Amino acid sequence: MKKIPLVHQGGPVVVLVRPQLAENMGMVARAMMNCGLSQLRLVNPREDWKGKKAISASSGAATVLENAVIFNSLEEALADIQMVFATTARERDMTKPFMGPIVATQKTESALKHKEKVAWIFGPERTGLENSDLALSDALVQIPLNPAHSSLNLSQAVLIMGYHWWTRDFKDKETLVMGAGRPATKKELSVFLGRLDESLMQAGYYAMPEKQERMRRNLHNIFERNRLTNAELKTLYNVLAALDKKK
Amino acid sequence: MKKIPLVHQGGPVVVLVRPQLAENMGMVARAMMNCGLSQLRLVNPREDWKGKKAISASSGAATVLENAVIFNSLEEALADIQMVFATTARERDMTKPFMGPIVATQKTESALKHKEKVAWIFGPERTGLENSDLALSDALVQIPLNPAHSSLNLSQAVLIMGYHWWTRDFKDKETLVMGAGRPATKKELSVFLGRLDESLMQAGYYAMPEKQERMRRNLHNIFERNRLTNAELKTLYNVLAALDKKK
Repeated sequence: MKKIPLVHQGGPVVVLVRPQLAENMGMVARAMMNCGLSQLRLVNPREDWKGKKAISASSGAATVLENAVIFNSLEEALADIQMVFATTARERDMTKPFMGPIVATQKTESALKHKEKVAWIFGPERTGLENSDLALSDALVQIPLNPAHSSLNLSQAVLIMGYHWWTRDFKDKETLVMGAGRPATKKELSVFLGRLDESLMQAGYYAMPEKQERMRRNLHNIFERNRLTNAELKTLYNVLAALDKKK
Repeated sequence: MKKIPLVHQGGPVVVLVRPQLAENMGMVARAMMNCGLSQLRLVNPREDWKGKKAISASSGAATVLENAVIFNSLEEALADIQMVFATTARERDMTKPFMGPIVATQKTESALKHKEKVAWIFGPERTGLENSDLALSDALVQIPLNPAHSSLNLSQAVLIMGYHWWTRDFKDKETLVMGAGRPATKKELSVFLGRLDESLMQAGYYAMPEKQERMRRNLHNIFERNRLTNAELKTLYNVLAALDKKK
Protein backbone atom coordinates (compact mmCIF):
# COMPACT_ATOMS: atom_id res chain seq x y z
CA MET A 1 0.00 0.00 0.00
CA LYS A 2 1.39 3.36 -0.94
CA LYS A 3 2.13 5.83 1.84
CA ILE A 4 1.26 9.48 1.63
CA PRO A 5 1.47 12.31 4.09
CA LEU A 6 -1.68 12.77 6.20
CA VAL A 7 -2.69 15.90 4.36
CA HIS A 8 -1.24 16.46 0.95
CA GLN A 9 -2.22 18.97 -1.67
CA GLY A 10 -2.34 16.58 -4.59
CA GLY A 11 -5.48 15.06 -5.99
CA PRO A 12 -8.68 16.67 -7.14
CA VAL A 13 -10.55 19.34 -5.19
CA VAL A 14 -13.86 18.06 -3.78
CA VAL A 15 -16.68 20.60 -4.14
CA LEU A 16 -19.96 20.06 -2.29
CA VAL A 17 -22.69 22.17 -3.83
CA ARG A 18 -25.31 23.36 -1.30
CA PRO A 19 -24.76 20.46 1.11
CA GLN A 20 -27.46 20.30 3.79
CA LEU A 21 -26.50 18.20 6.79
CA ALA A 22 -23.50 18.82 9.04
CA GLU A 23 -23.22 15.10 9.62
CA ASN A 24 -22.83 14.47 5.90
CA MET A 25 -20.13 17.14 5.59
CA GLY A 26 -18.29 15.43 8.44
CA MET A 27 -18.62 12.04 6.81
CA VAL A 28 -17.39 13.46 3.51
CA ALA A 29 -14.29 14.76 5.31
CA ARG A 30 -13.72 11.30 6.75
CA ALA A 31 -14.17 9.62 3.37
CA MET A 32 -11.75 12.11 1.78
CA MET A 33 -9.12 11.37 4.44
CA ASN A 34 -9.66 7.63 3.90
CA CYS A 35 -8.71 8.20 0.28
CA GLY A 36 -5.85 10.69 0.70
CA LEU A 37 -7.86 13.73 -0.41
CA SER A 38 -7.74 16.97 1.55
CA GLN A 39 -9.01 19.92 -0.48
CA LEU A 40 -12.66 20.59 0.29
CA ARG A 41 -14.78 23.48 -0.99
CA LEU A 42 -18.34 24.14 0.13
CA VAL A 43 -20.86 26.18 -1.84
CA ASN A 44 -23.55 27.65 0.45
CA PRO A 45 -23.58 24.89 3.09
CA ARG A 46 -26.88 24.89 5.00
CA GLU A 47 -25.61 23.64 8.35
CA ASP A 48 -22.42 24.33 10.29
CA TRP A 49 -19.49 22.43 8.80
CA LYS A 50 -17.24 23.14 11.81
CA GLY A 51 -19.75 22.42 14.59
CA LYS A 52 -19.85 19.45 16.95
CA LYS A 53 -22.02 17.32 14.69
CA ALA A 54 -19.74 17.68 11.69
CA ILE A 55 -16.55 17.21 13.69
CA SER A 56 -17.90 14.12 15.42
CA ALA A 57 -19.04 12.59 12.11
CA SER A 58 -15.64 13.31 10.58
CA SER A 59 -14.15 10.80 13.01
CA GLY A 60 -10.68 12.31 13.11
CA ALA A 61 -10.75 14.22 9.84
CA ALA A 62 -11.53 17.60 11.39
CA THR A 63 -8.56 19.22 9.62
CA VAL A 64 -10.31 18.71 6.30
CA LEU A 65 -13.34 20.60 7.65
CA GLU A 66 -11.21 23.32 9.23
CA ASN A 67 -9.39 23.88 5.94
CA ALA A 68 -12.57 23.85 3.87
CA VAL A 69 -13.06 26.97 1.74
CA ILE A 70 -16.56 28.47 1.51
CA PHE A 71 -18.11 30.08 -1.58
CA ASN A 72 -21.37 31.81 -2.42
CA SER A 73 -21.70 30.26 -5.85
CA LEU A 74 -20.38 27.29 -7.76
CA GLU A 75 -18.97 29.66 -10.35
CA GLU A 76 -16.76 31.28 -7.70
CA ALA A 77 -15.79 27.90 -6.29
CA LEU A 78 -14.57 26.84 -9.74
CA ALA A 79 -12.89 30.13 -10.68
CA ASP A 80 -9.32 28.74 -10.60
CA ILE A 81 -10.26 25.21 -11.74
CA GLN A 82 -9.39 23.97 -15.22
CA MET A 83 -11.28 20.70 -15.45
CA VAL A 84 -14.56 19.86 -13.74
CA PHE A 85 -16.23 16.47 -13.32
CA ALA A 86 -19.82 16.51 -12.11
CA THR A 87 -21.22 13.40 -10.43
CA THR A 88 -24.76 12.48 -11.28
CA ALA A 89 -26.98 9.54 -10.38
CA ARG A 90 -28.88 9.63 -13.66
CA GLU A 91 -28.35 10.51 -17.30
CA ARG A 92 -29.12 14.13 -18.05
CA ASP A 93 -30.60 15.83 -21.05
CA MET A 94 -27.40 17.70 -21.80
CA THR A 95 -24.69 17.24 -24.41
CA LYS A 96 -21.64 16.31 -22.34
CA PRO A 97 -18.98 13.63 -22.26
CA PHE A 98 -20.29 10.94 -19.95
CA MET A 99 -18.17 8.31 -18.17
CA GLY A 100 -17.71 6.10 -15.14
CA PRO A 101 -15.34 6.72 -12.20
CA ILE A 102 -12.44 4.77 -13.73
CA VAL A 103 -12.19 6.92 -16.85
CA ALA A 104 -12.85 10.07 -14.77
CA THR A 105 -9.99 9.13 -12.45
CA GLN A 106 -7.64 8.51 -15.38
CA LYS A 107 -8.51 11.89 -16.88
CA THR A 108 -8.11 13.55 -13.48
CA GLU A 109 -4.68 12.05 -12.99
CA SER A 110 -3.58 12.98 -16.47
CA ALA A 111 -4.74 16.59 -16.03
CA LEU A 112 -3.05 16.86 -12.62
CA LYS A 113 0.18 15.59 -14.16
CA HIS A 114 -0.03 18.52 -16.55
CA LYS A 115 -0.41 20.85 -13.52
CA GLU A 116 -4.06 21.54 -14.20
CA LYS A 117 -6.44 22.05 -11.27
CA VAL A 118 -9.24 19.51 -11.26
CA ALA A 119 -12.51 19.55 -9.28
CA TRP A 120 -15.08 16.85 -8.60
CA ILE A 121 -18.45 18.34 -7.77
CA PHE A 122 -21.27 16.70 -5.80
CA GLY A 123 -24.83 17.97 -5.46
CA PRO A 124 -27.12 18.43 -2.46
CA GLU A 125 -28.44 15.37 -0.63
CA ARG A 126 -32.03 15.37 -1.86
CA THR A 127 -31.84 16.60 -5.40
CA GLY A 128 -28.33 16.20 -6.74
CA LEU A 129 -26.79 18.80 -9.04
CA GLU A 130 -29.06 21.09 -11.05
CA ASN A 131 -28.68 21.58 -14.78
CA SER A 132 -27.19 25.03 -14.19
CA ASP A 133 -24.46 23.35 -12.07
CA LEU A 134 -23.83 20.72 -14.72
CA ALA A 135 -23.48 23.42 -17.35
CA LEU A 136 -20.25 24.50 -15.64
CA SER A 137 -18.71 21.04 -15.89
CA ASP A 138 -16.54 19.47 -18.57
CA ALA A 139 -17.91 15.98 -18.11
CA LEU A 140 -20.51 13.96 -16.22
CA VAL A 141 -19.58 10.97 -14.09
CA GLN A 142 -21.98 8.25 -13.07
CA ILE A 143 -21.10 5.68 -10.42
CA PRO A 144 -22.29 2.28 -11.69
CA LEU A 145 -24.81 0.85 -9.19
CA ASN A 146 -27.94 -1.27 -9.11
CA PRO A 147 -30.34 0.78 -11.27
CA ALA A 148 -33.21 -0.48 -9.10
CA HIS A 149 -31.67 1.24 -6.08
CA SER A 150 -28.95 3.66 -7.08
CA SER A 151 -29.40 6.47 -4.55
CA LEU A 152 -26.20 6.94 -2.57
CA ASN A 153 -25.61 8.95 0.57
CA LEU A 154 -23.49 12.02 -0.24
CA SER A 155 -20.48 10.76 1.71
CA GLN A 156 -20.71 7.38 0.02
CA ALA A 157 -20.59 9.00 -3.41
CA VAL A 158 -17.47 10.90 -2.32
CA LEU A 159 -16.06 7.68 -0.84
CA ILE A 160 -16.46 5.69 -4.04
CA MET A 161 -14.96 8.42 -6.21
CA GLY A 162 -12.15 8.89 -3.67
CA TYR A 163 -11.62 5.15 -3.49
CA HIS A 164 -11.09 5.06 -7.25
CA TRP A 165 -8.58 7.86 -6.84
CA TRP A 166 -6.70 6.18 -3.98
CA THR A 167 -6.61 2.75 -5.65
CA ARG A 168 -5.82 3.97 -9.16
CA ASP A 169 -2.45 2.16 -9.10
CA PHE A 170 -3.49 -0.64 -6.75
CA LYS A 171 -2.58 -4.11 -8.00
CA ASP A 172 -4.46 -6.68 -6.02
CA LYS A 173 -2.80 -9.98 -5.19
CA GLU A 174 -3.08 -12.86 -2.79
CA THR A 175 -0.38 -13.46 -0.22
CA LEU A 176 -0.10 -15.74 2.76
CA VAL A 177 0.19 -13.67 5.90
CA MET A 178 2.40 -15.38 8.43
CA GLY A 179 1.47 -15.23 12.09
CA ALA A 180 4.30 -16.76 14.12
CA GLY A 181 6.97 -18.37 11.97
CA ARG A 182 7.64 -18.75 8.26
CA PRO A 183 6.46 -21.21 5.63
CA ALA A 184 7.85 -24.67 6.33
CA THR A 185 10.25 -26.06 3.75
CA LYS A 186 9.26 -29.16 1.82
CA LYS A 187 12.02 -31.02 3.65
CA GLU A 188 10.64 -30.02 7.06
CA LEU A 189 7.21 -31.10 5.93
CA SER A 190 8.40 -34.49 4.63
CA VAL A 191 10.22 -35.19 7.91
CA PHE A 192 6.97 -34.47 9.74
CA LEU A 193 4.99 -36.67 7.35
CA GLY A 194 7.48 -39.48 7.93
CA ARG A 195 6.91 -39.11 11.66
CA LEU A 196 3.15 -39.16 11.08
CA ASP A 197 3.41 -42.32 8.94
CA GLU A 198 5.41 -44.00 11.70
CA SER A 199 2.69 -43.38 14.27
CA LEU A 200 0.01 -44.49 11.84
CA MET A 201 1.96 -47.62 10.92
CA GLN A 202 2.14 -48.58 14.60
CA ALA A 203 -1.55 -47.80 14.97
CA GLY A 204 -2.44 -50.18 12.12
CA TYR A 205 -3.73 -47.44 9.80
CA TYR A 206 -1.62 -48.75 6.89
CA ALA A 207 -2.60 -52.40 7.50
CA MET A 208 -3.49 -53.23 3.90
CA PRO A 209 -0.30 -53.16 1.81
CA GLU A 210 -2.11 -52.88 -1.55
CA LYS A 211 -3.86 -49.69 -0.41
CA GLN A 212 -0.95 -48.23 1.51
CA GLU A 213 0.50 -46.07 -1.27
CA ARG A 214 -2.79 -44.48 -2.19
CA MET A 215 -3.78 -43.88 1.44
CA ARG A 216 -0.43 -42.27 2.10
CA ARG A 217 -0.71 -40.05 -0.96
CA ASN A 218 -4.22 -38.86 -0.07
CA LEU A 219 -3.22 -38.11 3.50
CA HIS A 220 0.02 -36.35 2.56
CA ASN A 221 -1.82 -34.24 0.01
CA ILE A 222 -3.95 -32.62 2.75
CA PHE A 223 -0.76 -31.26 4.34
CA GLU A 224 1.22 -30.55 1.18
CA ARG A 225 -1.28 -28.03 -0.15
CA ASN A 226 -1.86 -26.37 3.20
CA ARG A 227 1.17 -24.06 3.25
CA LEU A 228 2.02 -24.89 6.89
CA THR A 229 4.47 -22.76 8.83
CA ASN A 230 7.35 -24.17 10.86
CA ALA A 231 5.46 -23.07 14.01
CA GLU A 232 2.38 -25.01 12.90
CA LEU A 233 4.55 -28.10 12.25
CA LYS A 234 5.69 -27.88 15.87
CA THR A 235 2.04 -27.82 16.95
CA LEU A 236 1.37 -30.93 14.87
CA TYR A 237 4.42 -32.75 16.33
CA ASN A 238 2.99 -32.06 19.80
CA VAL A 239 -0.43 -33.32 18.72
CA LEU A 240 1.16 -36.55 17.47
CA ALA A 241 3.15 -36.97 20.66
CA ALA A 242 0.00 -36.50 22.74
CA LEU A 243 -1.92 -39.07 20.68
CA ASP A 244 0.98 -41.55 20.85
CA LYS A 245 1.12 -41.18 24.63
CA LYS A 246 -2.62 -41.83 24.94
CA LYS A 247 -2.16 -45.23 23.32
CA MET B 1 -25.11 -1.17 -16.89
CA LYS B 2 -26.42 -4.63 -16.13
CA LYS B 3 -29.96 -5.01 -14.85
CA ILE B 4 -30.87 -7.37 -12.03
CA PRO B 5 -34.06 -8.04 -10.17
CA LEU B 6 -34.52 -5.88 -7.07
CA VAL B 7 -33.87 -8.77 -4.71
CA HIS B 8 -32.03 -11.73 -6.09
CA GLN B 9 -30.49 -14.64 -4.27
CA GLY B 10 -27.14 -14.57 -6.02
CA GLY B 11 -24.00 -13.07 -4.61
CA PRO B 12 -22.27 -13.60 -1.30
CA VAL B 13 -24.08 -13.60 2.05
CA VAL B 14 -23.21 -10.54 4.17
CA VAL B 15 -22.68 -11.40 7.84
CA LEU B 16 -22.48 -8.62 10.43
CA VAL B 17 -20.87 -9.91 13.61
CA ARG B 18 -22.19 -8.24 16.77
CA PRO B 19 -23.22 -4.99 15.03
CA GLN B 20 -24.08 -2.25 17.50
CA LEU B 21 -26.08 0.59 15.97
CA ALA B 22 -29.47 0.24 14.30
CA GLU B 23 -28.56 3.11 11.99
CA ASN B 24 -25.51 1.23 10.73
CA MET B 25 -27.52 -1.91 10.08
CA GLY B 26 -29.94 0.19 8.06
CA MET B 27 -27.13 1.79 6.09
CA VAL B 28 -25.61 -1.63 5.44
CA ALA B 29 -28.95 -2.75 3.99
CA ARG B 30 -28.97 0.32 1.75
CA ALA B 31 -25.39 -0.29 0.59
CA MET B 32 -26.22 -3.94 -0.13
CA MET B 33 -29.20 -2.95 -2.24
CA ASN B 34 -27.03 -0.38 -4.07
CA CYS B 35 -24.81 -3.27 -5.06
CA GLY B 36 -27.41 -5.94 -5.83
CA LEU B 37 -26.84 -7.93 -2.64
CA SER B 38 -29.76 -9.15 -0.55
CA GLN B 39 -28.77 -11.90 1.88
CA LEU B 40 -28.02 -10.44 5.31
CA ARG B 41 -27.21 -12.37 8.48
CA LEU B 42 -26.76 -10.76 11.89
CA VAL B 43 -24.88 -12.32 14.78
CA ASN B 44 -26.10 -10.95 18.14
CA PRO B 45 -27.09 -7.45 16.97
CA ARG B 46 -27.16 -5.03 19.91
CA GLU B 47 -29.90 -2.71 18.67
CA ASP B 48 -33.14 -3.38 16.82
CA TRP B 49 -32.52 -4.06 13.13
CA LYS B 50 -36.20 -3.72 12.23
CA GLY B 51 -37.03 -0.60 14.27
CA LYS B 52 -37.68 2.90 12.99
CA LYS B 53 -34.03 3.98 13.12
CA ALA B 54 -32.79 1.09 11.03
CA ILE B 55 -35.64 1.28 8.51
CA SER B 56 -35.16 5.01 8.08
CA ALA B 57 -31.40 4.64 7.58
CA SER B 58 -31.98 1.87 5.04
CA SER B 59 -33.57 4.47 2.77
CA GLY B 60 -35.81 2.07 0.88
CA ALA B 61 -33.93 -1.17 1.55
CA ALA B 62 -36.19 -2.35 4.39
CA THR B 63 -36.77 -5.70 2.67
CA VAL B 64 -33.12 -6.57 3.26
CA LEU B 65 -33.61 -5.91 7.00
CA GLU B 66 -36.90 -7.78 7.12
CA ASN B 67 -35.32 -10.81 5.48
CA ALA B 68 -32.21 -10.72 7.69
CA VAL B 69 -31.56 -13.96 9.58
CA ILE B 70 -30.40 -13.73 13.20
CA PHE B 71 -27.88 -16.04 14.90
CA ASN B 72 -26.45 -16.43 18.38
CA SER B 73 -22.94 -17.18 17.21
CA LEU B 74 -20.80 -16.73 14.13
CA GLU B 75 -20.32 -20.48 13.99
CA GLU B 76 -24.07 -20.99 13.58
CA ALA B 77 -24.28 -18.17 11.05
CA LEU B 78 -21.65 -19.91 8.93
CA ALA B 79 -22.95 -23.46 9.36
CA ASP B 80 -24.07 -23.88 5.72
CA ILE B 81 -21.32 -21.68 4.23
CA GLN B 82 -18.44 -23.17 2.27
CA MET B 83 -16.10 -20.23 1.84
CA VAL B 84 -15.65 -17.31 4.23
CA PHE B 85 -13.89 -14.00 3.64
CA ALA B 86 -13.26 -11.87 6.73
CA THR B 87 -12.73 -8.13 6.31
CA THR B 88 -10.08 -6.54 8.46
CA ALA B 89 -8.63 -3.05 8.66
CA ARG B 90 -5.19 -4.23 9.71
CA GLU B 91 -2.87 -7.18 9.24
CA ARG B 92 -3.38 -9.87 11.84
CA ASP B 93 -0.99 -12.20 13.57
CA MET B 94 -2.60 -15.24 11.99
CA THR B 95 -1.53 -17.49 9.14
CA LYS B 96 -4.19 -16.91 6.49
CA PRO B 97 -4.37 -16.06 2.82
CA PHE B 98 -4.57 -12.27 2.64
CA MET B 99 -5.87 -10.26 -0.30
CA GLY B 100 -7.63 -7.13 -1.50
CA PRO B 101 -11.26 -6.80 -2.57
CA ILE B 102 -10.56 -7.49 -6.25
CA VAL B 103 -9.06 -10.92 -5.68
CA ALA B 104 -11.67 -11.69 -3.00
CA THR B 105 -14.43 -10.82 -5.47
CA GLN B 106 -12.89 -13.03 -8.16
CA LYS B 107 -12.66 -15.94 -5.72
CA THR B 108 -16.22 -15.31 -4.56
CA GLU B 109 -17.55 -15.34 -8.11
CA SER B 110 -15.63 -18.47 -8.96
CA ALA B 111 -16.90 -20.31 -5.85
CA LEU B 112 -20.49 -19.19 -6.52
CA LYS B 113 -20.22 -20.50 -10.09
CA HIS B 114 -19.37 -23.87 -8.56
CA LYS B 115 -22.55 -23.63 -6.45
CA GLU B 116 -20.65 -23.02 -3.22
CA LYS B 117 -22.13 -20.73 -0.58
CA VAL B 118 -19.89 -17.78 0.17
CA ALA B 119 -20.01 -15.34 3.10
CA TRP B 120 -18.33 -12.00 3.67
CA ILE B 121 -18.07 -11.20 7.38
CA PHE B 122 -17.74 -7.75 8.98
CA GLY B 123 -16.91 -7.02 12.62
CA PRO B 124 -18.49 -4.68 15.18
CA GLU B 125 -18.13 -0.93 14.74
CA ARG B 126 -15.54 -0.20 17.43
CA THR B 127 -13.29 -3.20 17.43
CA GLY B 128 -13.63 -5.10 14.19
CA LEU B 129 -13.52 -8.89 14.10
CA GLU B 130 -11.82 -10.76 16.95
CA ASN B 131 -9.21 -13.42 16.33
CA SER B 132 -11.73 -16.12 17.24
CA ASP B 133 -13.96 -14.80 14.42
CA LEU B 134 -11.08 -14.72 11.96
CA ALA B 135 -10.19 -18.31 12.86
CA LEU B 136 -13.47 -19.38 11.17
CA SER B 137 -12.56 -17.71 7.89
CA ASP B 138 -10.76 -19.03 4.83
CA ALA B 139 -9.11 -15.74 3.98
CA LEU B 140 -8.65 -12.17 5.16
CA VAL B 141 -9.57 -9.20 2.99
CA GLN B 142 -8.21 -5.71 3.48
CA ILE B 143 -9.70 -2.71 1.69
CA PRO B 144 -6.79 -0.56 0.48
CA LEU B 145 -7.07 2.90 2.05
CA ASN B 146 -4.89 5.73 3.34
CA PRO B 147 -2.90 3.99 6.09
CA ALA B 148 -2.85 7.27 8.02
CA HIS B 149 -6.66 7.18 8.24
CA SER B 150 -8.06 3.79 7.31
CA SER B 151 -11.00 3.44 9.70
CA LEU B 152 -14.19 3.00 7.71
CA ASN B 153 -17.76 3.18 8.91
CA LEU B 154 -19.32 -0.33 8.88
CA SER B 155 -21.71 0.49 6.05
CA GLN B 156 -18.89 1.99 4.01
CA ALA B 157 -16.86 -1.20 4.32
CA VAL B 158 -19.89 -3.16 3.10
CA LEU B 159 -20.41 -0.60 0.33
CA ILE B 160 -16.87 -0.89 -1.01
CA MET B 161 -16.90 -4.68 -0.94
CA GLY B 162 -20.38 -4.67 -2.52
CA TYR B 163 -19.25 -2.13 -5.11
CA HIS B 164 -16.45 -4.46 -6.17
CA TRP B 165 -19.05 -7.21 -6.47
CA TRP B 166 -21.48 -5.11 -8.51
CA THR B 167 -18.81 -3.70 -10.84
CA ARG B 168 -16.86 -6.95 -11.31
CA ASP B 169 -17.69 -6.99 -15.03
CA PHE B 170 -17.96 -3.22 -15.47
CA LYS B 171 -15.98 -1.85 -18.40
CA ASP B 172 -15.68 1.89 -18.10
CA LYS B 173 -15.78 4.04 -21.21
CA GLU B 174 -16.39 7.58 -22.29
CA THR B 175 -19.42 8.44 -24.41
CA LEU B 176 -20.97 11.69 -25.51
CA VAL B 177 -24.45 11.94 -24.07
CA MET B 178 -26.73 13.79 -26.45
CA GLY B 179 -29.29 16.17 -25.06
CA ALA B 180 -31.48 17.35 -27.92
CA GLY B 181 -30.28 16.24 -31.33
CA ARG B 182 -27.48 14.06 -32.66
CA PRO B 183 -23.82 14.74 -33.51
CA ALA B 184 -23.58 17.05 -36.50
CA THR B 185 -22.01 15.57 -39.64
CA LYS B 186 -18.75 17.06 -40.90
CA LYS B 187 -20.67 18.34 -43.93
CA GLU B 188 -23.19 20.20 -41.73
CA LEU B 189 -20.30 21.64 -39.77
CA SER B 190 -18.40 22.81 -42.84
CA VAL B 191 -21.53 24.50 -44.21
CA PHE B 192 -21.84 26.35 -40.91
CA LEU B 193 -18.14 27.29 -40.91
CA GLY B 194 -18.56 28.61 -44.48
CA ARG B 195 -21.44 30.77 -43.25
CA LEU B 196 -19.28 31.97 -40.33
CA ASP B 197 -16.39 32.83 -42.66
CA GLU B 198 -18.75 34.84 -44.85
CA SER B 199 -19.86 36.99 -41.91
CA LEU B 200 -16.27 37.42 -40.75
CA MET B 201 -15.10 38.33 -44.25
CA GLN B 202 -17.72 41.09 -44.44
CA ALA B 203 -16.72 42.24 -40.95
CA GLY B 204 -13.05 42.58 -41.98
CA TYR B 205 -11.78 39.77 -39.73
CA TYR B 206 -9.84 38.17 -42.60
CA ALA B 207 -8.39 41.48 -43.82
CA MET B 208 -4.76 40.31 -44.08
CA PRO B 209 -4.53 37.77 -46.93
CA GLU B 210 -1.18 36.32 -45.79
CA LYS B 211 -2.66 35.41 -42.38
CA GLN B 212 -6.07 34.37 -43.61
CA GLU B 213 -5.39 30.64 -43.97
CA ARG B 214 -3.89 30.24 -40.53
CA MET B 215 -6.58 32.34 -38.86
CA ARG B 216 -9.25 30.27 -40.54
CA ARG B 217 -7.63 26.99 -39.49
CA ASN B 218 -7.29 28.05 -35.84
CA LEU B 219 -10.86 29.24 -35.69
CA HIS B 220 -12.28 26.17 -37.44
CA ASN B 221 -10.32 23.90 -35.12
CA ILE B 222 -12.23 25.18 -32.08
CA PHE B 223 -15.45 23.94 -33.61
CA GLU B 224 -14.12 20.81 -35.32
CA ARG B 225 -13.03 19.20 -32.06
CA ASN B 226 -16.12 20.21 -30.13
CA ARG B 227 -18.46 17.41 -31.24
CA LEU B 228 -21.34 19.82 -31.84
CA THR B 229 -24.87 18.49 -32.31
CA ASN B 230 -27.18 19.53 -35.15
CA ALA B 231 -29.29 21.35 -32.52
CA GLU B 232 -26.24 23.28 -31.33
CA LEU B 233 -25.42 24.24 -34.93
CA LYS B 234 -28.91 25.73 -35.20
CA THR B 235 -28.16 27.77 -32.06
CA LEU B 236 -24.94 29.04 -33.61
CA TYR B 237 -26.68 29.98 -36.89
CA ASN B 238 -29.11 32.07 -34.84
CA VAL B 239 -26.23 33.71 -32.97
CA LEU B 240 -24.60 34.63 -36.28
CA ALA B 241 -27.84 36.01 -37.68
CA ALA B 242 -28.31 38.15 -34.56
CA LEU B 243 -24.76 39.53 -34.78
CA ASP B 244 -25.14 40.24 -38.51
CA LYS B 245 -28.37 42.14 -37.88
CA LYS B 246 -26.68 44.23 -35.19
CA LYS B 247 -24.15 45.48 -37.69
